[in-house]
Amino acid sequence: MADSLITHYFEDLKVGMSGSFAKTLSEADVESYAGVTGDFNPLHVNREYAEHSIFKHRIAHGMLCAGLISSALGDRLPGPGAIYMSQTLEFKAPVAFEDTVTATITVKELQPEHHHVIVTTVCSVGGKVVISGEALLKVPSKNIMHDQKQQTPALV
Amino acid sequence: MADSLITHYFEDLKVGMSGSFAKTLSEADVESYAGVTGDFNPLHVNREYAEHSIFKHRIAHGMLCAGLISSALGDRLPGPGAIYMSQTLEFKAPVAFEDTVTATITVKELQPEHHHVIVTTVCSVGGKVVISGEALLKVPSKNIMHDQKQQTPALV
Amino acid sequence: MADSLITHYFEDLKVGMSGSFAKTLSEADVESYAGVTGDFNPLHVNREYAEHSIFKHRIAHGMLCAGLISSALGDRLPGPGAIYMSQTLEFKAPVAFEDTVTATITVKELQPEHHHVIVTTVCSVGGKVVISGEALLKVPSKNIMHDQKQQTPALV
Amino acid sequence: MADSLITHYFEDLKVGMSGSFAKTLSEADVESYAGVTGDFNPLHVNREYAEHSIFKHRIAHGMLCAGLISSALGDRLPGPGAIYMSQTLEFKAPVAFEDTVTATITVKELQPEHHHVIVTTVCSVGGKVVISGEALLKVPSKNIMHDQKQQTPALV
Repeated sequence: MADSLITHYFEDLKVGMSGSFAKTLSEADVESYAGVTGDFNPLHVNREYAEHSIFKHRIAHGMLCAGLISSALGDRLPGPGAIYMSQTLEFKAPVAFEDTVTATITVKELQPEHHHVIVTTVCSVGGKVVISGEALLKVPSKNIMHDQKQQTPALV
Repeated sequence: MADSLITHYFEDLKVGMSGSFAKTLSEADVESYAGVTGDFNPLHVNREYAEHSIFKHRIAHGMLCAGLISSALGDRLPGPGAIYMSQTLEFKAPVAFEDTVTATITVKELQPEHHHVIVTTVCSVGGKVVISGEALLKVPSKNIMHDQKQQTPALV
Repeated sequence: MADSLITHYFEDLKVGMSGSFAKTLSEADVESYAGVTGDFNPLHVNREYAEHSIFKHRIAHGMLCAGLISSALGDRLPGPGAIYMSQTLEFKAPVAFEDTVTATITVKELQPEHHHVIVTTVCSVGGKVVISGEALLKVPSKNIMHDQKQQTPALV
Repeated sequence: MADSLITHYFEDLKVGMSGSFAKTLSEADVESYAGVTGDFNPLHVNREYAEHSIFKHRIAHGMLCAGLISSALGDRLPGPGAIYMSQTLEFKAPVAFEDTVTATITVKELQPEHHHVIVTTVCSVGGKVVISGEALLKVPSKNIMHDQKQQTPALV
C-alpha cells in the first residue's frame, strides 16, 4: 500500500534530472520555526537587535531554508520512499523575510550497487544562491522491492 | 548595543568546550514544522503510510532535529553574534514522536587567522546518536570588534 | 461602535459577582506558548529532564495558566472595555498536561471615584487552587462615556 | 542528571545582578497566544474595534508580554531549577504589534534561610517601561542539593 506513493524508483533516475520546491518565507514562518526548534537567536526574533546587526534587518534561520531542500527531496525528487542519508550545507547569503526561496535538486551521480544517489541541493532567492550543498539518498529499487529486509540505517 | 548579547568571543573558546540544548519533539512540533517548510513526506504526516513503512510509525523530519543544532549554536555555544558558514549532517537513526533530542556542540578546532571555529554537532536520543556532523562558524573577536567592515559572506 | 461590545459597565458590577473561563491545556498548547514567548525552560519542553525533576513530568508554564485569568477578565467579567491595571499571582501548585484549568473572577471591591474594580483571580484544577491573586481594573462607566478624554495609563 | 542544566545556584546570585530576554511581538504571536489562552479580547483580535478604541490600533496581550519575564527567569536569571513562587505585574503602557519587548530581571534581595530571591521584573519597549513588578523565586542551593525532600509548594 505504502509503495503506491513512490514516484521515482532508482531505475527511473538519470543524471541531470532536476526538481524544485519554492516557498515565500514570512515573519510568521520564522516565528513558528523558532517556536518548534527553540532557536530564538536575536537575528531572527528581535527586530531592534537585527537592525543594528550587519544584516540591517531580521533574517530567516538557515536551517529553515534548508528544510525546503528536504521538502523538495521528499515530495518532488526522488519523492516518497527515499532514505535521506547525509547532507552538506554551505550558507552563502542571508534570506530576508518575504524572500521566496527555491530549493532545486539535481541528480549528480547514480551508484547502482546500493541504489544510492548523490544530488546537488541549491537554495536560491531571485537567482542568487543562498545555500549550496549535496545530499546522499538511498532510493527504492524496482528489482529489490521496498521490504523490511533492506538495511536502512538512516532516517528520512 | 547589539554586542551586549554576545556570550562567547573567539578568545573565550577552547578546544573541548561543549554546550547543549534538548527538546522533546511532539506530533504538534512535526506538524508545525511541516506547515512551515512544506515537507509533507508521508513518513511524517501520514500515519497509515508510516505504519506500513520500514519505520513502523511516523518519524520526525531529520532537518527539524538538525534545527536543534542551530538552536544550540545560536543560543548556547558560541551564542549570538556567530556566523553559521557550513554544516554537514549524517542521518544515523530515526527519531520517533515524543523522543527527547539533545543537540551537543563541542569545539574541535580554532582557526585564529579568520576567527573561524570548527565544532562537532551531535544529536542524540537516550544516548544514541541520531545525527552526527560538523559546523564551521565565524565568531566575533574582542580584538576586531563586531563591525560592518568585517566580511560576512554567510548567514546565521 | 466599539461600545456595543461592552457587557458590563461599572454600574452593572456588584461585590460577589463572578465569572469564569476554563480550558484543557495540552502538550500542543504548552509548545505553542513556548514558541511565542521563547520560554523553553526544560520543565516544559524536555520530557526526560522533567521526569527526573521534583514534578516527575512536564508541567504547563505558570504564565500560560495566568493567561486564562486575562481571558476570563476580558471576555467574561467585566468583559471588553475594561483596562487591566495590575495583577498579583501566587503560584500554588503545578499544572500537568491535559489538566483543565478554570480561571474564576470574583468582584471584591468597587471604587466609584475612578471606576476601579478589585477582583480576586483564582485558577484551579479539579477544585484545587493552582494560582491565586487579585487584579485591579478600570471599567467603563455609563455616566462618563468611553471616550478619549478619559485618562487610561495602562494597557488591557 | 537534571542538575547539569542549572546555571545559577543561590550562592552564585548577588544583589544587582541582571539578565534580560527580548523578542519582537508580531501579529502572528498575538494570534497564536490568543488561540492557546482563549483570550480573544477585541483589542487584540479585532482590528476594526481596536482602531476605534483609545489605543487606535490592536495591542499585544499584557500577559503575553509578561510571559517574556518568565522566559528571562527560566532561561537566563536565575535559569533552570528555580521555582516561581509569586509575581506582581503593573501594566503601565500598551504594546503595539512589531514592538520589541525587553524583559529585564534584576536581583533585589536574597533570603538565605529558604534560598528565596526577590527580583524586579521590568518589560520595556524602546527604553519605556510597559510592565513593572517583582517576583519571588526559590533557587537551588549548592549546600542542600536539589532533591525530592525539598518542599516545593509552587510551580515553575
